[in-house]
Amino acid sequence: MKTSRVEAFSDGVLAIVITIMVLELRVPEGHELSDLLGMTGTGLLTYLLSFVYIGIYWNSHHHMFHLVERVNGGVLWANLALLFCLSLFPFTTAWVDESGFARTPVVLYGVNLLASALAYVVLQNVIIRHQGPDSALRQAVGRDRKGKASLVLDVAGILSALLIPGPAGVWLALGCFVAVVVMWVVPDPRIDRIARRPAEPA
Amino acid sequence: MKTSRVEAFSDGVLAIVITIMVLELRVPEGHELSDLLGMTGTGLLTYLLSFVYIGIYWNSHHHMFHLVERVNGGVLWANLALLFCLSLFPFTTAWVDESGFARTPVVLYGVNLLASALAYVVLQNVIIRHQGPDSALRQAVGRDRKGKASLVLDVAGILSALLIPGPAGVWLALGCFVAVVVMWVVPDPRIDRIARRPAEPA
Amino acid sequence: MKTSRVEAFSDGVLAIVITIMVLELRVPEGHELSDLLGMTGTGLLTYLLSFVYIGIYWNSHHHMFHLVERVNGGVLWANLALLFCLSLFPFTTAWVDESGFARTPVVLYGVNLLASALAYVVLQNVIIRHQGPDSALRQAVGRDRKGKASLVLDVAGILSALLIPGPAGVWLALGCFVAVVVMWVVPDPRIDRIARRPAEPA
Amino acid sequence: MKTSRVEAFSDGVLAIVITIMVLELRVPEGHELSDLLGMTGTGLLTYLLSFVYIGIYWNSHHHMFHLVERVNGGVLWANLALLFCLSLFPFTTAWVDESGFARTPVVLYGVNLLASALAYVVLQNVIIRHQGPDSALRQAVGRDRKGKASLVLDVAGILSALLIPGPAGVWLALGCFVAVVVMWVVPDPRIDRIARRPAEPA
Repeated sequence: MKTSRVEAFSDGVLAIVITIMVLELRVPEGHELSDLLGMTGTGLLTYLLSFVYIGIYWNSHHHMFHLVERVNGGVLWANLALLFCLSLFPFTTAWVDESGFARTPVVLYGVNLLASALAYVVLQNVIIRHQGPDSALRQAVGRDRKGKASLVLDVAGILSALLIPGPAGVWLALGCFVAVVVMWVVPDPRIDRIARRPAEPA
Repeated sequence: MKTSRVEAFSDGVLAIVITIMVLELRVPEGHELSDLLGMTGTGLLTYLLSFVYIGIYWNSHHHMFHLVERVNGGVLWANLALLFCLSLFPFTTAWVDESGFARTPVVLYGVNLLASALAYVVLQNVIIRHQGPDSALRQAVGRDRKGKASLVLDVAGILSALLIPGPAGVWLALGCFVAVVVMWVVPDPRIDRIARRPAEPA
Repeated sequence: MKTSRVEAFSDGVLAIVITIMVLELRVPEGHELSDLLGMTGTGLLTYLLSFVYIGIYWNSHHHMFHLVERVNGGVLWANLALLFCLSLFPFTTAWVDESGFARTPVVLYGVNLLASALAYVVLQNVIIRHQGPDSALRQAVGRDRKGKASLVLDVAGILSALLIPGPAGVWLALGCFVAVVVMWVVPDPRIDRIARRPAEPA
Repeated sequence: MKTSRVEAFSDGVLAIVITIMVLELRVPEGHELSDLLGMTGTGLLTYLLSFVYIGIYWNSHHHMFHLVERVNGGVLWANLALLFCLSLFPFTTAWVDESGFARTPVVLYGVNLLASALAYVVLQNVIIRHQGPDSALRQAVGRDRKGKASLVLDVAGILSALLIPGPAGVWLALGCFVAVVVMWVVPDPRIDRIARRPAEPA
């Protein structure tokens, strides 16, 4: 089977996930700037963070399927597992926001990030196995240092929120999650040089 | 008429159905793990179950239209009937979840599953009739044992929820519905062997 | 400009419109069949009616753009006007349902139907003018008796809800609206005979 | 990388943004025309305004990518930034509406318009730089007088809402925003003459 419908369906799901998060933004009850900042300020920030995360995954998915010509049942299911993990972002983002960055919701957000990153790795490996020994994707992924660094940062964030008491742990965790975003968004000169290198997000 | 827009429209509807169910997940009021498990735990499970069901249908739809080259008005309407049945999943899933797996919502969920499976069979037959005596889809479907087993399991689930008193009937019904999912998700060696065999879900 | 993105965007909007109406279906508070029928029964019927209306428009849009090869700015805007009218269906459907089929919401629903039908006619005419004297669409549309009958039925429904006192006027109006649906859904032998004849809904 | 998935993903996001705003329209509590006009009248107008804005952007995006053959990482991110700005319209539109056109929400709406227009300019420039010295887009954009006039009108609207006391400032701001819409929707004879000239919205 060709990849066109897998790409179209994934585009649809990711477009919805990235957009419905804005539905969680509650309109402030007052009409002043202070009402906006008080009620919705952190909501806008977490929305931005999750928007960029989904954007990174869409970019990477786009790059990856650029090197895929045919899919089988295993690829379809691994892709659905990734979409399932990503579809939980509106929920985990909303909980982080409504709890005012409490410990447990931040841990759950990190688990969501980690589960998505692992689902991406599984999808990548299923495709590489399907492509066989001359896999174009395997050569493009290479040692995948950025992908591995993301997994480490996700785990570090989860652990710091779990183990370090007080707000420090939560802020350190958020720092880890933002670092992953920065690592992927800041332009990587190699990417445009090796124009067809697919990227793996965290 | 070609199939591209039918596929694109179906992809769009299924992407939305599979994604908006997550909007039904209410953010827990507290900030602890117990709040998450208490309020949202079963919600996550029913979301997962319905996500996988829609995923199965998308996979099967993908396989089926792979063998279709042209559509007529009858195919368009049979396809819309299937999409209508599937679009009710967010509603029936939410009722099952909010009622805490009460008898009537579970029966309705089973009826939704059964109606979707029947709509799929109707769509399949409309396409086969449209393709004429040398229908590629008819050869691919073959005896459709998996499809028939799903219908039987759906009916068995509905009947057990209706007829067996107490929680046992409800759990037996859910067991039937999960069994259908497992039957379709667990890789079927024949599918990749007969690469173009379309699948029919329950 | 080619039509592919116009079709893709319209498919996206119609897929969303047809699907988000199910979000309006409120989960019943009780767990019995009577709760479902009492709270949600008419909701399911109005959802079905509007789903079929949007389905008719999608079918007709599909047929119409089958005969269009290039679009200009006027076509894009006429298409957006049609999508705007259709995007109001979730709102007018919900009002009809929540008011328990009160007079004014039923009139508004009819106005929504009429506005959509007129927007469709405008789009058709803009395309025909853009295609020039040998317009394939003009030949396909022919005398467009079905389209004109739909406009008459829409106006008749609006007037009967406005002018005939008591529930009779409302039910007559709903009868007109259902008659339009039946007229378009019931297979028209000419459509498959003149395979490329585009349809215009009401 | 080719542009097809960028276009498909953008179409998906814009289709959702343009459609979910209708979800913000609350169904009136009464069943009379006065209830509709009282509760939802301005909502319909702001929905229409934002619908047309998103429609303008979709049209312009459509024109612009018509002249683009390949994209790189920078184009993908500039495009995501534009989609992020546009995805905030349902939120800012709802606040304007619920506040009854209070000063701060109107300013925020103007900031949203301005940010979207700037993101569009950035995307345009990133594409032009990527296309190199013979950029087809650069030639098509030309002096981009309409784009510059839009930026001026957006800033004028924001300033008038901020600086002119009383309702006059708010209404002047809304006048500026409507003027931008009119400028872009009213057919521009040059556009169809120079058929491939891409447009830049405000």
